[in-house]
Amino acid sequence: MPEPGVRPGTVKIQVGAAGICGSDIHEYVGGPISVPMSSPHPLTGETAPVVFGHELAGTVTEIGPGVTRVDVGDRVAVNAALSCGRCDSCAHGWTNVCRSIGFHGVTGGGGGFAAFDVVPESNLHRLPDEISDEVGALLEPLATGFHAVDLSGARQGDGVLVLGAGPVGLMVVLACVAAGIENIVVVEPSATRRSLAAVFGATRCLDPRTESVVDVTHNETRGHGAAAAFDAAAAPTSLADAVASTRPRGTIVNIAAWEKPTPFDPTTLLFRETLLRGSLAYTVGDFDRGVAFAADHAATLERLITRVIGLDDVITEGFDRLAFERHDDIKVLVRPGAAPSAASTAAG
Amino acid sequence: MPEPGVRPGTVKIQVGAAGICGSDIHEYVGGPISVPMSSPHPLTGETAPVVFGHELAGTVTEIGPGVTRVDVGDRVAVNAALSCGRCDSCAHGWTNVCRSIGFHGVTGGGGGFAAFDVVPESNLHRLPDEISDEVGALLEPLATGFHAVDLSGARQGDGVLVLGAGPVGLMVVLACVAAGIENIVVVEPSATRRSLAAVFGATRCLDPRTESVVDVTHNETRGHGAAAAFDAAAAPTSLADAVASTRPRGTIVNIAAWEKPTPFDPTTLLFRETLLRGSLAYTVGDFDRGVAFAADHAATLERLITRVIGLDDVITEGFDRLAFERHDDIKVLVRPGAAPSAASTAAG
Repeated sequence: MPEPGVRPGTVKIQVGAAGICGSDIHEYVGGPISVPMSSPHPLTGETAPVVFGHELAGTVTEIGPGVTRVDVGDRVAVNAALSCGRCDSCAHGWTNVCRSIGFHGVTGGGGGFAAFDVVPESNLHRLPDEISDEVGALLEPLATGFHAVDLSGARQGDGVLVLGAGPVGLMVVLACVAAGIENIVVVEPSATRRSLAAVFGATRCLDPRTESVVDVTHNETRGHGAAAAFDAAAAPTSLADAVASTRPRGTIVNIAAWEKPTPFDPTTLLFRETLLRGSLAYTVGDFDRGVAFAADHAATLERLITRVIGLDDVITEGFDRLAFERHDDIKVLVRPGAAPSAASTAAG
Repeated sequence: MPEPGVRPGTVKIQVGAAGICGSDIHEYVGGPISVPMSSPHPLTGETAPVVFGHELAGTVTEIGPGVTRVDVGDRVAVNAALSCGRCDSCAHGWTNVCRSIGFHGVTGGGGGFAAFDVVPESNLHRLPDEISDEVGALLEPLATGFHAVDLSGARQGDGVLVLGAGPVGLMVVLACVAAGIENIVVVEPSATRRSLAAVFGATRCLDPRTESVVDVTHNETRGHGAAAAFDAAAAPTSLADAVASTRPRGTIVNIAAWEKPTPFDPTTLLFRETLLRGSLAYTVGDFDRGVAFAADHAATLERLITRVIGLDDVITEGFDRLAFERHDDIKVLVRPGAAPSAASTAAG
């Protein structure tokens, strides 16, 4: 791909780090899902092939005409959500469910798995010194966690249930901590991920193969049930477990992408008037709150990074390994500036 | 069964009319579902056999000690929802999802398929002269409709979708009219029920076997999609149709009791952050709003009543016919005072 040039209102970034997301793997293995194939995406005007990488941070090297909020040398993270600004969703401020929603690094317009990327100024968030490029590349999934917790309505004093402690589930745990929620039950089969969830702030972690999600959640919430449950697992029993574990008028937030329909009995929503809602990406406000939180919790966030690889290894050591091999990775970062031999396990 | 006697805080009613509900038929054919069998219901202290009939109105014939809000000769409708007043749900005012929720006429404590019924004073709503006993027996399902529309968040100017025009779906249509919603799309295979839905205030009725629910809803809402969808059908496609027909952050209210799990893809809730929630019964406030509405719309409500039968015919002409025979009935009322030969088709 040629090196991209700046246009009015856009900024050129030397990419410092870019994360591989589960949705990237879904596109690679089961896609195209969101990648525009036959007709150009309405916001980017592009069809495949597109540059991937929607979780990234780096340093501004050039600014286009009209750019006023950032300057050369600034370190920035990219908010990948693209919105039209004109539809009814955007008019409500629900830019994340814009009628033309796109994602930089997925639906065209550039992406982070490259030495340089060009991004609209409005999609940049300046990074304080406390946040490295590596941690900056984690802000996108962190914003997803902040958005989900915001939609859940969970508040200080509530108990919550988080199903799945992959990158998104762990980000939800952090967002719950940020919201002052002190009672966080995490369900996760992997012992490694359970340990990390505890470090992140989970107050009770359980393996659903050996303990009852419903019983533990009720015990941990003095019999009330969780105020909110977050499904970041899409496991066969996770939806039913979430319904049975929430208190009257509790909220279940589905963040997971399911690969196929699952049997579900809507009658189970009746007895406690349970709410089930989808949460997609984030707004600018969610991202800003994530930046502020990350500045104080950078060392914790770093523990998500289990490997850092070079750009030339992104297929073999990144996509192929995450998709087809047994691995204990949580977040794999690509550092375009790193030599191929720099592939290593991060110290954490 | 012996004629029940009044107790402190209760009132004896000569039943004027009592409706047969779809849930009664579910209990009869597929039950027991809510009828307490082995352990006494916490609020009524009763186990089966119990008196059925939870949609009723009649005249007060005797008041127990301490009763102050009604007097002998008053005409009243019964709010069947029983709540403990002490649990966390009741403390929030969510009496309809009380931890011990019961229903007069289902979970013991008396019922309307009887000459006389004894009901707690707090479950009575006085009827104005405009509301006959027959229409009074419709207030319970009407309150269910008011509650569902309240939970939906739909407001004046919104477009809504109602799936199913049985008694509950039709009550939802009325509650939408009461809420000032002028754009009401109703999906119903039965031509008879579609006609009634139009009388009740539906602005567009469609047969899902010949028209696309999603296309019609979008056409009727200027491309936006419905602000709310009400599932009173539990049809194989109704949930997917509802999801695809609602606007960003729209709400789907499930009021239907599903007989078994249905395939469902939670990912479909993501793209527009759709909310799916259960709605159960009603609160005292929902019932009061229904009474006020019914006083002005009694003639419309009467059209729901397709047959009136005597008490001796309740099994043969009521339950058996509704459960096992082809019928065009919408609401069948039992009039305990009517002679068996009085079974007739109401003029409507």
